Amino acid sequence: MALGFSMVALHSRRTEGEDKIFATNNAALNAAKVVGSDRVVNASIGALLNEDGSLSVLPTVIDLLRNLPPEEYAAYAPIGGLPSFLEAAKKAVFRHHVPKGYMEAVATPGGSGAIRHAIWNYSEIGDAILTSDWYWGPYKTVAEEHGRTLETYSLFDEKDAFNLTSFKEKTVSLLEKQSSIVILLNSPAHNPTGYSLSMEEWKEVITFLRSQASNTEKRIILFSDIAYIDFSGDVDDSRAFMELFGDLPQNILTIVAFSMSKGYTLYGMRCGAMIGISSNPDVAKEFKSANQFSNRGVWSNGTRPAMTVLAKIFEDPQLLKQVEAERRTLQDMLTERADVFIQEAKKANLKICPYKAGFFITIPCKNPDLVAAALQKEYIFAVPLGKGLRFAVCSVPKIHCATVPQTIARIIQQVDADL
Amino acid sequence: MALGFSMVALHSRRTEGEDKIFATNNAALNAAKVVGSDRVVNASIGALLNEDGSLSVLPTVIDLLRNLPPEEYAAYAPIGGLPSFLEAAKKAVFRHHVPKGYMEAVATPGGSGAIRHAIWNYSEIGDAILTSDWYWGPYKTVAEEHGRTLETYSLFDEKDAFNLTSFKEKTVSLLEKQSSIVILLNSPAHNPTGYSLSMEEWKEVITFLRSQASNTEKRIILFSDIAYIDFSGDVDDSRAFMELFGDLPQNILTIVAFSMSKGYTLYGMRCGAMIGISSNPDVAKEFKSANQFSNRGVWSNGTRPAMTVLAKIFEDPQLLKQVEAERRTLQDMLTERADVFIQEAKKANLKICPYKAGFFITIPCKNPDLVAAALQKEYIFAVPLGKGLRFAVCSVPKIHCATVPQTIARIIQQVDADL
Repeated sequence: MALGFSMVALHSRRTEGEDKIFATNNAALNAAKVVGSDRVVNASIGALLNEDGSLSVLPTVIDLLRNLPPEEYAAYAPIGGLPSFLEAAKKAVFRHHVPKGYMEAVATPGGSGAIRHAIWNYSEIGDAILTSDWYWGPYKTVAEEHGRTLETYSLFDEKDAFNLTSFKEKTVSLLEKQSSIVILLNSPAHNPTGYSLSMEEWKEVITFLRSQASNTEKRIILFSDIAYIDFSGDVDDSRAFMELFGDLPQNILTIVAFSMSKGYTLYGMRCGAMIGISSNPDVAKEFKSANQFSNRGVWSNGTRPAMTVLAKIFEDPQLLKQVEAERRTLQDMLTERADVFIQEAKKANLKICPYKAGFFITIPCKNPDLVAAALQKEYIFAVPLGKGLRFAVCSVPKIHCATVPQTIARIIQQVDADL
Repeated sequence: MALGFSMVALHSRRTEGEDKIFATNNAALNAAKVVGSDRVVNASIGALLNEDGSLSVLPTVIDLLRNLPPEEYAAYAPIGGLPSFLEAAKKAVFRHHVPKGYMEAVATPGGSGAIRHAIWNYSEIGDAILTSDWYWGPYKTVAEEHGRTLETYSLFDEKDAFNLTSFKEKTVSLLEKQSSIVILLNSPAHNPTGYSLSMEEWKEVITFLRSQASNTEKRIILFSDIAYIDFSGDVDDSRAFMELFGDLPQNILTIVAFSMSKGYTLYGMRCGAMIGISSNPDVAKEFKSANQFSNRGVWSNGTRPAMTVLAKIFEDPQLLKQVEAERRTLQDMLTERADVFIQEAKKANLKICPYKAGFFITIPCKNPDLVAAALQKEYIFAVPLGKGLRFAVCSVPKIHCATVPQTIARIIQQVDADL
């Protein structure tokens, strides 16, 4: 926005960027009004939709939420979160793969709140936060809101595997300039690519961070964003890497961000938690204390009824089984869509980022904005990113996932040829 | 906490202060286990309780919340809040007293989130935020979390009226040092004193701020915290002062903080909004844009089902009437308790701060910690503040409100005599 007379502080003055997800979704909705929603492929929405376009929900979770006693909606939760919720969150996060170490948890509004606290409390103003070149846009928003910048390493190497070399280079270079580094690592089922680090890749990451921690003047904060973990295959296998967070040097703190948004289809309830793991009990205690203080100093406390629902689920094995069965149906639906998309992309010679699981598939391309615009004329609405298109398989029926890759391949060729 | 090895950023290192409200409440619960809850007066809790000690709720609100379609719990709200909610919030805030000017609203988690955004976006790091010497503790927490300090003026003059002189002095002095000033003004039914500025006092405040705004280099942000407005008498009379927020110079921005916590007994749902009013459309637009960016950069979005509930209430006059009738019953219960407390305090020659309405009554005294400790031996649990005791009439049955002032008066005399 053009800045006329301004009342905000210097650091809050900025030109308003267009929200591309919002704009793409709006364009899709408008097109649906004109040509009918069955002809429109709206791949902009980051939520899991059923084949008929309705939002996927876990009925057991909704039933629990609707049938709490009145006080559970009305009363404040404690600042740090209901203790029963924090215990449940730990179980939900680790299952059988609890890392060894001292552990503390603090409730946050979804994963976003955890990112905020991690950045604010574990980096200095002016620091750069590290993530991969394909990243969820709000990482940058949170960094900028708090006077930090975002730096990136290349997520993929030439073999479409995790680019450990780039990761190492950037980490080393930031640790030369800063006394601490916050690394935002979104795996499994990375948003936007759907990539998951293999166990081998995780081990290499941790081994490297251990080596960097030998400089005891430096502090390394590994922020493990697992927002999509419940849609990334087997419940236990997908969590095996978390054991690597145990027994690390005291100057490596791992923070795992838990969210009820996707795994419990409670996006709108804003409930999550951050779990800190350290080999030093003081660091764990400080984690609790600093982030609890931040809760009070930012949003006060969290959404109690959602906390109670998670506690109930993990107190009752039967309920947990039900939730998992319902979720499996959704995951199967998602996997089928991704499978057919990948298969058709291969047939169409359409290059995609290495997808393992999750809500999105990305298509690298040279002119994302032009390609996205041209696709809209074919009633396909995908979000242009810096280096490609984000296609939300989570929100597109299987029948469209089968036909769209052909069209995308054709449009990319056309756009590239026209330039 | 003693700082051993630390991982947090420099600005996040602090010694952990005891939460006195939490500690007092805990002591009360422990005492209740020993002597029975009927002998314990727990005046620490900042929520309205029924005479039997259960949490007061508005049944209509809870019914609405429980009977939404599944998608309303599951889906994300837009970053800035559901448009229907923002419209409802404006109605809930102003009723028939809409100030003239350009107005924008952004959803926040309760009033706390609005305080955070106002401080972050409208003051520079290092600035002092202004409020009165009796204040809600978290004002300081929010300021400190964000690298600001809190400065205070004397709330009351020798006649127990609003201390305009002190307010003016502090404002002038801060405006000499800073290019902008954020003033947190909690009225009506101020927490912790229960004071409400009269219309005359409000006019004087605004006239003074207008005069300060004649220096066009300075920016004045008046943050009107109305958390308890729905428990401060007549719905419309209590809002008359808000018309004064209209037609102000462009370098005065008024922000009104709306919360569903108390007025809709949805403390645990974390839903509120901040409404900015300016005579300059650019300032209103910037308000929307800056605070929406902050939403995305801090907690992402708000609790959708609570937003939907408020929208429903203000779309249906019959529902609004029902909610107001239910709330009136609660307000009458609260007023009766306060009335009897004040009456008995007078009989006992116990000085209290000038109470008009709200959840708390405060008793100024020289040694709040000692007095609070001595009262605990009589099974009376009130929160020690810097300059007195906070007694939560909202959570103490009427029968105790009638007897407690005598005891407090006696204990204060004893403590003072012993020193």
